[in-house]
Amino acid sequence: MKVAKFGGSSVASAEQLKKVANIIQGDKQRKAIVVSAPGKRFSEDIKVTDLLIDLGQAYQDSQNYQQELDAVLTRFRSIVEQLKLSTDVLTEIESDVKDIIQSDYTIELKLEAIKAVGEDSLAKVLSLYLQSLGMNATYLNPQEAGIIVSDQPGSAQILEESFDKLYQLRNREEIVVIPGFFGYTKEGKLVTFSRGGSDITGSIVAAGAQAELYENFTDVDSVYCVNPQIVDNPKEITSLTYKEMRELSYAGFSVFHAEALIPAFKAKIPVCIKNTNNPDGLGTIIVSRKEVRGNPVVGIASDAGFLSLYVSKYLMNREIGFGRRLLNILEDEGISYEHTPSGIDDLSVIIRESQLTPEKEETIINRIKNELQPDAVYTERGLALIMIVGEEMHSYIGTAARATKALEDAEVNIEMINQGSSEVSLMFGVKAEGVNRAVQSLYRAFFETELW
Amino acid sequence: MKVAKFGGSSVASAEQLKKVANIIQGDKQRKAIVVSAPGKRFSEDIKVTDLLIDLGQAYQDSQNYQQELDAVLTRFRSIVEQLKLSTDVLTEIESDVKDIIQSDYTIELKLEAIKAVGEDSLAKVLSLYLQSLGMNATYLNPQEAGIIVSDQPGSAQILEESFDKLYQLRNREEIVVIPGFFGYTKEGKLVTFSRGGSDITGSIVAAGAQAELYENFTDVDSVYCVNPQIVDNPKEITSLTYKEMRELSYAGFSVFHAEALIPAFKAKIPVCIKNTNNPDGLGTIIVSRKEVRGNPVVGIASDAGFLSLYVSKYLMNREIGFGRRLLNILEDEGISYEHTPSGIDDLSVIIRESQLTPEKEETIINRIKNELQPDAVYTERGLALIMIVGEEMHSYIGTAARATKALEDAEVNIEMINQGSSEVSLMFGVKAEGVNRAVQSLYRAFFETELW
Repeated sequence: MKVAKFGGSSVASAEQLKKVANIIQGDKQRKAIVVSAPGKRFSEDIKVTDLLIDLGQAYQDSQNYQQELDAVLTRFRSIVEQLKLSTDVLTEIESDVKDIIQSDYTIELKLEAIKAVGEDSLAKVLSLYLQSLGMNATYLNPQEAGIIVSDQPGSAQILEESFDKLYQLRNREEIVVIPGFFGYTKEGKLVTFSRGGSDITGSIVAAGAQAELYENFTDVDSVYCVNPQIVDNPKEITSLTYKEMRELSYAGFSVFHAEALIPAFKAKIPVCIKNTNNPDGLGTIIVSRKEVRGNPVVGIASDAGFLSLYVSKYLMNREIGFGRRLLNILEDEGISYEHTPSGIDDLSVIIRESQLTPEKEETIINRIKNELQPDAVYTERGLALIMIVGEEMHSYIGTAARATKALEDAEVNIEMINQGSSEVSLMFGVKAEGVNRAVQSLYRAFFETELW
Repeated sequence: MKVAKFGGSSVASAEQLKKVANIIQGDKQRKAIVVSAPGKRFSEDIKVTDLLIDLGQAYQDSQNYQQELDAVLTRFRSIVEQLKLSTDVLTEIESDVKDIIQSDYTIELKLEAIKAVGEDSLAKVLSLYLQSLGMNATYLNPQEAGIIVSDQPGSAQILEESFDKLYQLRNREEIVVIPGFFGYTKEGKLVTFSRGGSDITGSIVAAGAQAELYENFTDVDSVYCVNPQIVDNPKEITSLTYKEMRELSYAGFSVFHAEALIPAFKAKIPVCIKNTNNPDGLGTIIVSRKEVRGNPVVGIASDAGFLSLYVSKYLMNREIGFGRRLLNILEDEGISYEHTPSGIDDLSVIIRESQLTPEKEETIINRIKNELQPDAVYTERGLALIMIVGEEMHSYIGTAARATKALEDAEVNIEMINQGSSEVSLMFGVKAEGVNRAVQSLYRAFFETELW
C-alpha cells in the first residue's frame, strides 16, 4: 500500500480536490490519505489554519468569534458547494467549534482543538467527495487510527505504541482519509504537532503501516539541485537519500521540515515528492540508500545569516577543556551553534546571526574575556554557508579540488571549509555578498561540466 | 643588546665551545649568553643531563653514584683540558653534587638540583674560557640574574616580577653567562623548567632584558619549509612569524618547544635561529609581524598518529549542548582533542592516537552510547594531518584550489579539511599511507610553481 499526503495548496479549493480525487483513483495502492487544512488559493489568501488561530484568539480575547467562524465556514462552503456535496458538513464544523468552546477543557486545549478543525473538516469533506464519486472511502479520526502522542501541545511527539495500531490500516478494505497535524494523548486529549505537522502525520502513518511508498503531494514538480532563484532552470533531482535531503534542507532547501521525515526515515520507507498539478511527472524520491552512478553530487544549497565568533589564545591547544568551556558559556546563554572550525591556538564558532543580539553578543564576549582570558575575541557577521551534498562524494578524489577551483573562478574568497565528519557534504563559508556568484560557479562545475 | 642561547650540540665539546667563543666575540651586542648542558658529540653519545639523571637515580636507588659522577666529570675534564683551563672547576662540580646530596633537601629537590648541574657547570666553564681569551665575562647564577619561578619542579613557570630584575642586565658592563634550564622559587629552592628548558631561559632573559634580538644557536642552518626527510633539498625559510612557527611546530616541525617562545612572543622580541657551525649563514628569523611578499605560504608540516572519533545522530544539530556534552565526556576521561569538524547531524573529534588506548576507547564509546544515544559512534585510526602555513594566505583567492589540486594530482583522498579559524593555516587530514606523497605534491605546488 501507499500513503499519500496532500498539502495545503493541494486541498485549497474544489478544483484542487478534484485533482486529488483523480490521483487517488489513479492508483489502487493509495489506501491511506493524509490531508492538510486548505491553504492559500492565491498569494494574498489566508490559510484556514490561520483563520482558526484568529478564531481562537478572538474567543480568548472577547468570547466573540462569530466573524472568524464565518470566514472558516465560507471557505468550506465554497468547496462543498462546488463539489456538489451536502451542506450538512458545514453544520457539523460549526457545532464542532462550539462544542470545543463550550467544553470544560483548559483554554490551552481548546485552542489546540480549534487549530485542528481545518484538517479534520477537510478530511471529512474529502471522504464525502470520494464517496460521491463511488469510491469506498471513509474519514478516520487520528485517535481511531492509533496516533497516540505525548502530552506536549504544539509539539507533540509520537509514542512507540502507535505503530502497532497503525499497522492494522493495512487490513482495511476501504480508503481511509486521515486529518494531519494532530493526535491524541493516552488520556484522549487532542494535541497538535509543530507547524507543518501534516507532513509528520503522513510520515507516521507510512511508517506504522509499513507502506511501500509515502507520497507527499505538493505544488512543485520535484526538488531542484540548486535554488531556481539563483540558477535559471536548474536540473531536477530524481532521487536522493534521507541524509542528502537533511543536509540540503539545512541550508536553504525548504521542501520538508526535517523532523517530519524521522518516522519514515527510521522505518526506511521511501518518500516521493510529487506535484498535485502534474501527477504524471517523475517527482523526486527520497530513499535510505541508493547507488551512486555518475555524478556523486546531488545538490548545492546555500544560506546567509551566519556569523563567526573567533577566539584565540597562545597554546590554547594545550589547555584541556578550553573548547568545552567556551561551548558551556554559549549554552548558558541559550545560544546554539553550527560548527567549530579550529586552528592550533584558535577556535571559531559559527552561529546563526539571528541568535545573537548586540546585547547578547556583549554579554558573551565579556564572559569569554573574563572566564577564558583569550588573546583575542571578536565576531564577524555577514557569513553565508554553502553545502555541496552527495553520498559517497568524499570517496571521489578531486571533489574538493573541483569545488575550490569553482570558487576561485568566481573570485570568491573562502572564509571557511568544513569537511571531515559528514560523509554527505562539503561545506564552505563565504562572505554573503559573494554567495550567489559562488553557487552559480559551483553549479557550472558540478552540473554542467563533464565529470569524473 | 642581544641574547644568545647555545644549545646542547653547540656546547658538546671543546671544539664547539671555541666556535661559541668566536661567535660571542664577533658581535659586541651579544651581552647575555644562555647555555645548555653539553649534548651529544656523536649519535651514540650520552647527553650530560642524562648522565646526571642516571646519577640521581643511582643515588636514590643505592646511595652509590660514584660511577655516574665519574662519567660526568670525564665529560667536563675533556672540555676543560682541551680549552687549557684550570681543573679547579672539576673539583667544584664534584663538591656541588656532594653538597646537594648531603643537604637536608627533600629527595625531589635534590634530584632537581642534580639535573641542573650540567648547565650550571658549563656556564662556569664557558665564562672561564671567555676570560682566558681576555674577554670581560662572568658566570651569573639564575637567582642573581632574577629568574624567579613558581614552585613546580620539572615544569616551573616564570613569575612576572622576574622581568624587572632581568631588565637590569642591560646595565652590565661585562658579558654574563647564565645557565639555562632552571630558576629559583621565592624561597630560594632550585627548580627546573620542562625538558628543553634552556630555550625557555633564553626567551625569558631576552624578554626581561628587552633584547633587540634573541639568537638561538643550534646545529641547523635554518628552518626548512618542509621536512627534508620527505622532500630533498627543500627551500629554507628566511623569516616567519610566531604564529606561523607555532602552527608549523604543531605538526612535525621540532626546532622549538612552543612554550619556550611565550616570553619572547609576549615581549615581541625577534628570534633568530642560527647554526653554531655556520654562524655567517642567514638563519631563520621569527618576528611578530612581517610583510607578505610573493608566496604567502611559508611552510608545510605533517604529522601522523591521529584518529577520528565519529558520532552521528539524526537532528543532532537541534540538540543544544550535544557537542559540549561529548567534549565533557572526553575531558572527564582525561582526553584532549585537536579539532572537531562537523556536518549537520554528525561530529568528528580528532584525537592523537597515543591518547586513546583500546580500553579507554571502549569506555568512551560506551559512555557516548549511554549518555548521548547516537545513531552511530566509531573511531577511525591511521590519520595524518598536513598543515599549510602562512600569514595572510587566506586572503589570497585560490590557495585552497591550489592545495586541493595538488592532493588530487597525488591521488590522495581528503578525509578532512579544516579552514576557517586560523588566519595562518589550512589543514588537511589524509590517510597516513598517503601523507608523504601529499606533502611532496603540495611542495611542488607551492614552492616549485610560479605563484600568485
